[in-house]
Amino acid sequence: MKIGMIGLGKMGYNLALNLLDHKHQVVANDVNREQVDALQNDGATPAYSIEEVVNQLEKPRTIWLMVPAGEITEKLVETLYHLLDEDDVVIDGGNSNYKDSLRRAELFKEKNIHFVDVGTSGGVDGAREGACMMVGGSKEVIQRVDPIFKDTTIENGYLHAGEAGSGHFLKMIHNGIEYGMMQSIAEGFEILEKSPFDYDYERVAKVWNHGSVIRSWLMELTQNAFSKDPELDGIKGVMNSSGEGKWTVETALDFQAPAPVIALSLMMRYRSLEDDTFTGKVVAALRNEFGGHEVVKK
Amino acid sequence: MKIGMIGLGKMGYNLALNLLDHKHQVVANDVNREQVDALQNDGATPAYSIEEVVNQLEKPRTIWLMVPAGEITEKLVETLYHLLDEDDVVIDGGNSNYKDSLRRAELFKEKNIHFVDVGTSGGVDGAREGACMMVGGSKEVIQRVDPIFKDTTIENGYLHAGEAGSGHFLKMIHNGIEYGMMQSIAEGFEILEKSPFDYDYERVAKVWNHGSVIRSWLMELTQNAFSKDPELDGIKGVMNSSGEGKWTVETALDFQAPAPVIALSLMMRYRSLEDDTFTGKVVAALRNEFGGHEVVKK
Amino acid sequence: MKIGMIGLGKMGYNLALNLLDHKHQVVANDVNREQVDALQNDGATPAYSIEEVVNQLEKPRTIWLMVPAGEITEKLVETLYHLLDEDDVVIDGGNSNYKDSLRRAELFKEKNIHFVDVGTSGGVDGAREGACMMVGGSKEVIQRVDPIFKDTTIENGYLHAGEAGSGHFLKMIHNGIEYGMMQSIAEGFEILEKSPFDYDYERVAKVWNHGSVIRSWLMELTQNAFSKDPELDGIKGVMNSSGEGKWTVETALDFQAPAPVIALSLMMRYRSLEDDTFTGKVVAALRNEFGGHEVVKK
Amino acid sequence: MKIGMIGLGKMGYNLALNLLDHKHQVVANDVNREQVDALQNDGATPAYSIEEVVNQLEKPRTIWLMVPAGEITEKLVETLYHLLDEDDVVIDGGNSNYKDSLRRAELFKEKNIHFVDVGTSGGVDGAREGACMMVGGSKEVIQRVDPIFKDTTIENGYLHAGEAGSGHFLKMIHNGIEYGMMQSIAEGFEILEKSPFDYDYERVAKVWNHGSVIRSWLMELTQNAFSKDPELDGIKGVMNSSGEGKWTVETALDFQAPAPVIALSLMMRYRSLEDDTFTGKVVAALRNEFGGHEVVKK
Repeated sequence: MKIGMIGLGKMGYNLALNLLDHKHQVVANDVNREQVDALQNDGATPAYSIEEVVNQLEKPRTIWLMVPAGEITEKLVETLYHLLDEDDVVIDGGNSNYKDSLRRAELFKEKNIHFVDVGTSGGVDGAREGACMMVGGSKEVIQRVDPIFKDTTIENGYLHAGEAGSGHFLKMIHNGIEYGMMQSIAEGFEILEKSPFDYDYERVAKVWNHGSVIRSWLMELTQNAFSKDPELDGIKGVMNSSGEGKWTVETALDFQAPAPVIALSLMMRYRSLEDDTFTGKVVAALRNEFGGHEVVKK
Repeated sequence: MKIGMIGLGKMGYNLALNLLDHKHQVVANDVNREQVDALQNDGATPAYSIEEVVNQLEKPRTIWLMVPAGEITEKLVETLYHLLDEDDVVIDGGNSNYKDSLRRAELFKEKNIHFVDVGTSGGVDGAREGACMMVGGSKEVIQRVDPIFKDTTIENGYLHAGEAGSGHFLKMIHNGIEYGMMQSIAEGFEILEKSPFDYDYERVAKVWNHGSVIRSWLMELTQNAFSKDPELDGIKGVMNSSGEGKWTVETALDFQAPAPVIALSLMMRYRSLEDDTFTGKVVAALRNEFGGHEVVKK
Repeated sequence: MKIGMIGLGKMGYNLALNLLDHKHQVVANDVNREQVDALQNDGATPAYSIEEVVNQLEKPRTIWLMVPAGEITEKLVETLYHLLDEDDVVIDGGNSNYKDSLRRAELFKEKNIHFVDVGTSGGVDGAREGACMMVGGSKEVIQRVDPIFKDTTIENGYLHAGEAGSGHFLKMIHNGIEYGMMQSIAEGFEILEKSPFDYDYERVAKVWNHGSVIRSWLMELTQNAFSKDPELDGIKGVMNSSGEGKWTVETALDFQAPAPVIALSLMMRYRSLEDDTFTGKVVAALRNEFGGHEVVKK
Repeated sequence: MKIGMIGLGKMGYNLALNLLDHKHQVVANDVNREQVDALQNDGATPAYSIEEVVNQLEKPRTIWLMVPAGEITEKLVETLYHLLDEDDVVIDGGNSNYKDSLRRAELFKEKNIHFVDVGTSGGVDGAREGACMMVGGSKEVIQRVDPIFKDTTIENGYLHAGEAGSGHFLKMIHNGIEYGMMQSIAEGFEILEKSPFDYDYERVAKVWNHGSVIRSWLMELTQNAFSKDPELDGIKGVMNSSGEGKWTVETALDFQAPAPVIALSLMMRYRSLEDDTFTGKVVAALRNEFGGHEVVKK
């Protein structure tokens, strides 16, 4: 197929290479001209504006967005809404909030443009060699773009999940589960670290990856991490987050779905951003007030 | 009544004064001779050993222990087991684990000595002016020592809760609830502190104490604390704990009773003891492994 | 002062009576004509439409909304935006989300109309006899309407918290704390209920209200509840919620403020809405898969 | 090697077969005579009492216990303490609490008997084909029995973790992590189930197992479970537990190690054992008291 690829960052660039490997034609665009030129050397057709992308594709067009969620995606959506024609397909492969995807699908429907949302997991290596993709969109349009997803995913790593929005929703929940699994693993090592035993954490992660119930890719990564820094002495325990965990919790609240462990995993991330907490000060002050318990002075 | 009081720390000394005010006779003992002498000046009969306490009381004797829970209480229990006679009463007013109280009640029963466990709340002021007491023991013996509890508690602040052990159990649960309430209040102020508004926390606590649903003694103490240090700038948010919260959680586990908020309140206290966490390091390392997310270097 | 009161439900009606008691003039409106007539008998001036409210007040007008948050408030705000003039004051005494209040304050500012948001606690009795009010708005306008708040609140139960929005924000956080305190108290009784002791819960709540650290209005209500139904046999443990707890958690997420106990208290409410959970089914199925542990068949 | 195997349940029987496959000699014992005879047919030497096991082994002996933790293990430990001689080795392959293992190692040390604790993961299939084993014991004795563990584990699935106790400790933490991971996965599906989309859960689990961050053995089992019962309609969400999760939380409390997510995962299991909760009743009653909110009558 011939695909317009907008956004040649780490993910988009590798995905484009992956498409080229599979004999697809790629019309490549990025705000950074050098990325476009580089991909031209790898076999893509360059496009230095969105208009050029649109003009170099034959109707019905297929355009894949691989750009940051939020404002940048929103602007592109608006631009494409004006440039595209009936029966064209817009694929959003970024980490968009499913509510935005639902809204955009509705918007495009006004002009009979098809919207497809793709939640992508597996990182840069996945984009290059075969990712995990959760895809939302109508049956008809997914059948049309099916080869793209088949070719860029690993075996069994591609699911048409349902109507538009269901792909990004599924990716969001995937990340929520990921938060909980990571926190669980990490708490286990927290207790080991305080135990009277002198464990070799890399070897612990390794044995847990072979035959145990908790063997998992995250545990393999744990093993890798400890192989580089056996006690993680070099890093601070600051747990940043990039939005999808928060969306998962907000979604659980919207549906009144009890998801306490995922919510708490997120809260512990926020806790890790603080050196000291106001919560702690209030409790310490209260203990001092009623029981005369000493506070730690600053 | 004539009561042997063993342990003249802040709580025991004030409780003894409270008893003397109410025309009880007190035979006073402490490991610290000066405390005994001081209380003699206030009207007590001095006793410089446990034997002296026992000998200066007429059968059936009533002895109140107001000493630290754990080893010190255990040793005294053993000593008294040997020195006391049938129908004597031992009252443990310390913060003992209810399991120890159950065991000690059984032990004393072998010699037909009565055991009474008292959970005391209200601090030093309470001990002096009128405390809150949750009392466990058999109906018969509680009737006998009833005047002591009536006289040293505030109105309605005395409950014969049930058989031996039930007093310390109730005090333990009281503390578990206290952990949850304190954490709840403190989290509220945590969010206020991060809000775009510029609240005067003392006045906030004050208004919440007048007519609102969350008015409470803890909120009054919150107001006091902020009146002394408006932003709690002088103290660190280290939340120590003294055991009863932990016992509450352990008890919940023993009974398979879901008490997630009390458990979490305790966990947040432990979290506050750490400057950085191993949990956080593991999660940060994992995020770096799978997503290339930057870690904070030390 | 002369005040337009829109919304004569349980809260608004009693608040209007409270205002009349304090010699204020009330122009009363409600969608329900009978409520208006009833309040006329109590001394108010009737108004059967918003236009009538506006016309019966002299400039600068003061209008108090006591209607359900959300759509109904929104519509009234739009109507009043068109009907009111410069320097008029709109007071929203409902349970509005502070984000709406911030937005509405901006909206009214376009026409130099003043917006005041009031978080009210204390229930119907409070509205009638003296409530707790947390008020947001500019210094100048609050000074003008100050008598209204002074007269309808209990002593010390009124706080000008800050700029517009700060009143509803404070009320929201108040409710978040309330969720945590209620869950803490309830978990304590949960453990008591599973204990080997046979507690009289009403008397437990009573003793905890006299001299203990956890004495509070909520514990008094606990005592009341048990006095009516000693084991709460007549009711189901379904914990509904009305929005402000959810907003508190969403706000904590927005500010990356760790508030794990409040979040968990909300999650346990959602959990209580389920007879059985999909979460539980998945875990049970997994235990069966890896360990052959028996599942409970339906 | 020649090994005495005591306990021929599902785990012990398959482990014995595994040992026989690897040309070890097995002296087999069980309280159930038929199990002993069956294993004799498979090539083991039968022993109908503990004494027979001991007598049929040459010094220094190696005896593997594969019996339920707790009382049964304790009794066997006492019996073996009396029957065994210096330099013999006792391996406990059951799910014992590490504190018991520490105590038993000390006990056997009095007679210079070696104690080895083995945490085993991987279920019955693992026992038969190659398990995951976390082993605690002194360097010297582990070297001696090393072939047994090498032969009965899968590649890289065997770790000498440290001194006696460290094996069972590591298995315990493994299970704690397992609780958290399972709850995380299950909560994800809980939200999916309440979403507006119509997911095929088996296919969701399948796609998550191919290329995603959360691919894991537990997710494979999730896929299996949904393949048998697509909506898990046939089972109830009762989440039982068998002790090691509780021990993990108790251990976290002992070390003041914050492990909130593991603790909460356990609490949610206890919650699932209740149809209705006393916690919920108390909160519902309180909402009714202060706000007149309706309760659900039974």
